[in-house]
Amino acid sequence: MPELPQVPITLEGSSVLHQMFRFDWTAWNKLPATDRAALANAFTEMLARWERGSSEGHPNQSALFSQIGHKGDLTLIHFRDSMEDLNRVELELAQTGIYPYLQLVHSYLSVVELGLYESSEKLYTQLAEKGLEPGTPEWNAGLTEGTARTAGSLASRLYPTIPPAKYLCFYPMDRKRGETVNWYAETMADRRAMMHEHMLIGRRYADSVRQIITGSIGLDDWEWGVDLFADEPVIFKKLIYEMRFDKVSAVYATFGQFFLSVRVPAANAAQWFEGTLA
Amino acid sequence: MPELPQVPITLEGSSVLHQMFRFDWTAWNKLPATDRAALANAFTEMLARWERGSSEGHPNQSALFSQIGHKGDLTLIHFRDSMEDLNRVELELAQTGIYPYLQLVHSYLSVVELGLYESSEKLYTQLAEKGLEPGTPEWNAGLTEGTARTAGSLASRLYPTIPPAKYLCFYPMDRKRGETVNWYAETMADRRAMMHEHMLIGRRYADSVRQIITGSIGLDDWEWGVDLFADEPVIFKKLIYEMRFDKVSAVYATFGQFFLSVRVPAANAAQWFEGTLA
Amino acid sequence: MPELPQVPITLEGSSVLHQMFRFDWTAWNKLPATDRAALANAFTEMLARWERGSSEGHPNQSALFSQIGHKGDLTLIHFRDSMEDLNRVELELAQTGIYPYLQLVHSYLSVVELGLYESSEKLYTQLAEKGLEPGTPEWNAGLTEGTARTAGSLASRLYPTIPPAKYLCFYPMDRKRGETVNWYAETMADRRAMMHEHMLIGRRYADSVRQIITGSIGLDDWEWGVDLFADEPVIFKKLIYEMRFDKVSAVYATFGQFFLSVRVPAANAAQWFEGTLA
Amino acid sequence: MPELPQVPITLEGSSVLHQMFRFDWTAWNKLPATDRAALANAFTEMLARWERGSSEGHPNQSALFSQIGHKGDLTLIHFRDSMEDLNRVELELAQTGIYPYLQLVHSYLSVVELGLYESSEKLYTQLAEKGLEPGTPEWNAGLTEGTARTAGSLASRLYPTIPPAKYLCFYPMDRKRGETVNWYAETMADRRAMMHEHMLIGRRYADSVRQIITGSIGLDDWEWGVDLFADEPVIFKKLIYEMRFDKVSAVYATFGQFFLSVRVPAANAAQWFEGTLA
Amino acid sequence: MPELPQVPITLEGSSVLHQMFRFDWTAWNKLPATDRAALANAFTEMLARWERGSSEGHPNQSALFSQIGHKGDLTLIHFRDSMEDLNRVELELAQTGIYPYLQLVHSYLSVVELGLYESSEKLYTQLAEKGLEPGTPEWNAGLTEGTARTAGSLASRLYPTIPPAKYLCFYPMDRKRGETVNWYAETMADRRAMMHEHMLIGRRYADSVRQIITGSIGLDDWEWGVDLFADEPVIFKKLIYEMRFDKVSAVYATFGQFFLSVRVPAANAAQWFEGTLA
Repeated sequence: MPELPQVPITLEGSSVLHQMFRFDWTAWNKLPATDRAALANAFTEMLARWERGSSEGHPNQSALFSQIGHKGDLTLIHFRDSMEDLNRVELELAQTGIYPYLQLVHSYLSVVELGLYESSEKLYTQLAEKGLEPGTPEWNAGLTEGTARTAGSLASRLYPTIPPAKYLCFYPMDRKRGETVNWYAETMADRRAMMHEHMLIGRRYADSVRQIITGSIGLDDWEWGVDLFADEPVIFKKLIYEMRFDKVSAVYATFGQFFLSVRVPAANAAQWFEGTLA
Repeated sequence: MPELPQVPITLEGSSVLHQMFRFDWTAWNKLPATDRAALANAFTEMLARWERGSSEGHPNQSALFSQIGHKGDLTLIHFRDSMEDLNRVELELAQTGIYPYLQLVHSYLSVVELGLYESSEKLYTQLAEKGLEPGTPEWNAGLTEGTARTAGSLASRLYPTIPPAKYLCFYPMDRKRGETVNWYAETMADRRAMMHEHMLIGRRYADSVRQIITGSIGLDDWEWGVDLFADEPVIFKKLIYEMRFDKVSAVYATFGQFFLSVRVPAANAAQWFEGTLA
Repeated sequence: MPELPQVPITLEGSSVLHQMFRFDWTAWNKLPATDRAALANAFTEMLARWERGSSEGHPNQSALFSQIGHKGDLTLIHFRDSMEDLNRVELELAQTGIYPYLQLVHSYLSVVELGLYESSEKLYTQLAEKGLEPGTPEWNAGLTEGTARTAGSLASRLYPTIPPAKYLCFYPMDRKRGETVNWYAETMADRRAMMHEHMLIGRRYADSVRQIITGSIGLDDWEWGVDLFADEPVIFKKLIYEMRFDKVSAVYATFGQFFLSVRVPAANAAQWFEGTLA
Repeated sequence: MPELPQVPITLEGSSVLHQMFRFDWTAWNKLPATDRAALANAFTEMLARWERGSSEGHPNQSALFSQIGHKGDLTLIHFRDSMEDLNRVELELAQTGIYPYLQLVHSYLSVVELGLYESSEKLYTQLAEKGLEPGTPEWNAGLTEGTARTAGSLASRLYPTIPPAKYLCFYPMDRKRGETVNWYAETMADRRAMMHEHMLIGRRYADSVRQIITGSIGLDDWEWGVDLFADEPVIFKKLIYEMRFDKVSAVYATFGQFFLSVRVPAANAAQWFEGTLA
Repeated sequence: MPELPQVPITLEGSSVLHQMFRFDWTAWNKLPATDRAALANAFTEMLARWERGSSEGHPNQSALFSQIGHKGDLTLIHFRDSMEDLNRVELELAQTGIYPYLQLVHSYLSVVELGLYESSEKLYTQLAEKGLEPGTPEWNAGLTEGTARTAGSLASRLYPTIPPAKYLCFYPMDRKRGETVNWYAETMADRRAMMHEHMLIGRRYADSVRQIITGSIGLDDWEWGVDLFADEPVIFKKLIYEMRFDKVSAVYATFGQFFLSVRVPAANAAQWFEGTLA
């Protein structure tokens, strides 16, 4: 049997953009109330349209959040069919009347990713047992066929709707490549086993936390972005704290900044711009 | 006996937000004195209400501090029942007349946390000795029951009033996850023993320093935030210096920025805005 | 046979400047539409001239991209015959009417580089077998002669035209010089073998990704800059993820920021400045 | 004999604040000359009062320096009896007419510290030989008594006057807590020996360099701040370079930014504000 | 024979300040052409005077460069007899009419340094063979005498004129003090041997690259600053790349930012301010 590839198959779905803004309350509150209302309403209409997303095809939704702390006042997350479409969202927002009051201070660009550690090994073994060589046209055809089936069954996870939970926790992360501890130098079997243990913890929290993993290698400054959705934010801490003791996190995870925010449905956006969280 | 969990039980209480502001003295001092007085009074009234906190339920207080150095001129700390309520505080503050003179330059979001290293091991052992398996409904029920009793007795520490001391020292911190030195890879027993030694030092300073530990995994960029309250700031240095030699700090602690500030009760706030520390 | 040099021969071609700008939509949208049109047209004319590049000699082209995220709104890349000419481009742009709306937030200066690991070893061995000593005039003459031949055959790669692909991925990188893992302390033979494995992966993606490597030691803050061009951006992630498992990347690569952008041909630039991606 | 404490005794004196400002020459030079003179004179009067310090008790002086480079144009250092008094200095300065032209870009908060490595071991041994146990009331009483005597004899170093030298070099530093090299895990005897070697170098420079060490654990972002005063700045380089080879620096020191500045006595301050160094 | 010092003798010459500015083209281009000309001429006159330097004593010159990339638009380097004089240059520049269009974004303060690894060992050995003890008055007298002779013969390198080359490459650097790899813990003999190998590479480039090494321990944030002057910038890359494989760089060097710029003689400065590189 030939040496099997060490790289797990990944499936990609929606392109995703996170935008974090400071809101210029000082300039905004100097506007006459009717001007504020007009700008807020125009923004709200656009947001409502983005919230609904596509009536056919993938959901392609956006959502607004009220962010806590100095790292931003508002978060927008956008799921779209392409990076180009995400750029179009940015440009559309930049033409709105409310844009001068929004200061874009952070963002994150990624794509929904499902890492198929378990089925990769199975598929690689099957193909190898058929006598195929990695990298040959026959091998690639086998991969494409095996993957397409999986992708079909996972379509709703690859092109997700945005969970309606009250709180959002977002953070980017890397797998460590240290001088002695190096995720990318571990064997596929060891990585699979560690990811499995990691997933079991996540599963125990599945009732209260919805998770969307996005990949950003080649797209942004970290390797992955994690979005957690829950109605109660302390569960984020409990979940991530418990995971911090599993091997893949304890030894191999490096974390970026954490962003916590509260969902503001379009229906409540105008109220937010008057300074009140519904 | 089954393998016991390696993650200590934590109890969570008040949601906590630290806000650090630069104050725009130049613009402020250009205002007519009567305008300054009116804005300062309105702020002071709000602060006085926040200082009193809730008349029933948890204290839910805020406090104002005059910060030393370029990292900020004013610090506000807020204890509330939820992250949503902290966001409401931010939004309320943003609508005040004094807000244009406040530049939010830093913040920290966390939740009061009690890490029960000692009782976790006892409770895990008790449950295991009853023949329960970690993760089963019976085990979880046992945990919930055992923890509820403890949480009740610790309510005043989980939902604290803000100590009236003159000085505040705040800093965030992590436990190290290096390539060879990794807190999260140590056994529960070793971690408990190190935390015990650490706590004994803290106890010897208990007469002069009040400490509130908050957890921020999943909420902000460090794992914990530490607030120390004392009437004499050199004691902060003595306490933290002594702790730096205990094993859990010497080997496993990583520290963020340190913020030192002087309490400004609402009764003295108007005076501060005229440039004088009472 | 004398000890052979450990430094591979590199060939250098076009000088390259990346410029990343935030665009001040707020100020821009306050301009009368006719003023915007005039400024955009003047910029477009200059860009069209830069896109065409030189009618003789090297291509010396520039290209415009619409960047996604907060790290910039527009990217310009310029290929020229000298660093001086790149500085002239900067100065010419600074005199345009649209420049006040462009805020230069990042840049990268480098030179197209071909690292000749394979032929270096061959050439060094040939010269040594002729009895020449490294560093002697005869050796250097031999190097110059051997290299000139190669450079001639690689001219179109040293002075490339800008690929017409829809997406650009740019990132800078270093080879690690850690305390135990140190690229520059590995033997030439080991480095060559690792680069070879690396190149084989790139080759499998050659149909969908065009790559231009530039060197920036002594010119900018990282050792190399990588430009990837493709019509489908997920391929950037797939390529770089697969490479992350090859030894030279897994163990020795350190990455800077990643910048993703969408090509805006001069023909579509005016439309972009009206807020629409073609 | 009981195990002796591993933490050296430290004595603390004056609270110290460093402030680094950029000066807005552009706005300043737009003022009419008479306005500039009035503002500079008012500042100079305040500075002269601060330079004189207290007529009784501790010196409690401030001093002004003209800083070289982009990290600031002016440095102020303040020695006071308490952190509160330092905050009062900040507030007083913020109310002056010159403050709008000063942009506070950096600061450092610390307290004069004498680390008594030598006498700590002696005192601990004496107390232990008397049969006292560390941490008992008798032990603490013995420490207090032994320390008070020392503090008395060191009063002029704990509450220093500001040396009149022409140049100031300030930098903060830490002792390293790496994964294998960790100052806080070394024995007291080893640390004492290394500090002794370090001190001997300092002593050889004592004729030309005056040094004030301040501690900032719990107060600011590094563990110590170092102020060196000399009439000839190259001596700073010679002293610190030589020390870099002693073990405590070579192996255990981590340095922050370095700030070099030239003394501007109050008598010359008005001249500085007209753009000339006396 | 006594233990010889481990610290090489260094000789110091001119005090050196690098200043990097962004130029505010937007505000500048709003000025009437006659105002621009007047301001540029006044600046040019000052620059011409600085370029000529001192008519007697040390050269004490300054030079202007057009910088490439976002790290700055203009670089000024100044060689003077003292740090005070460098501060005077800063203050003089700040009073010019063009200063409001210059934003100082970076700087570097250092002093020309010749590290005498070879002659230090010889001199230390000679003195020891005479029976002198390091640190005694006799030893120091011998050092002073031996060094003075050397300094005299190196005066033109200690107080250099600014080379007239077209391109400048500047970067700061440190010697690594890692947990296992630590330059300052190596023996003098090993350091000397590594510096010797390093110097031999530099010598082979001496025809095309002029190098000025400045020391900045105690003066600025890195240990050394390196200025390379050449008419062809690719040679910077070739030289530094080759050096990166010698042991002292591969293992012990840590680099800061790299700044590349093109010389603008005073004769061409007015043209630059009209947006053209001569």
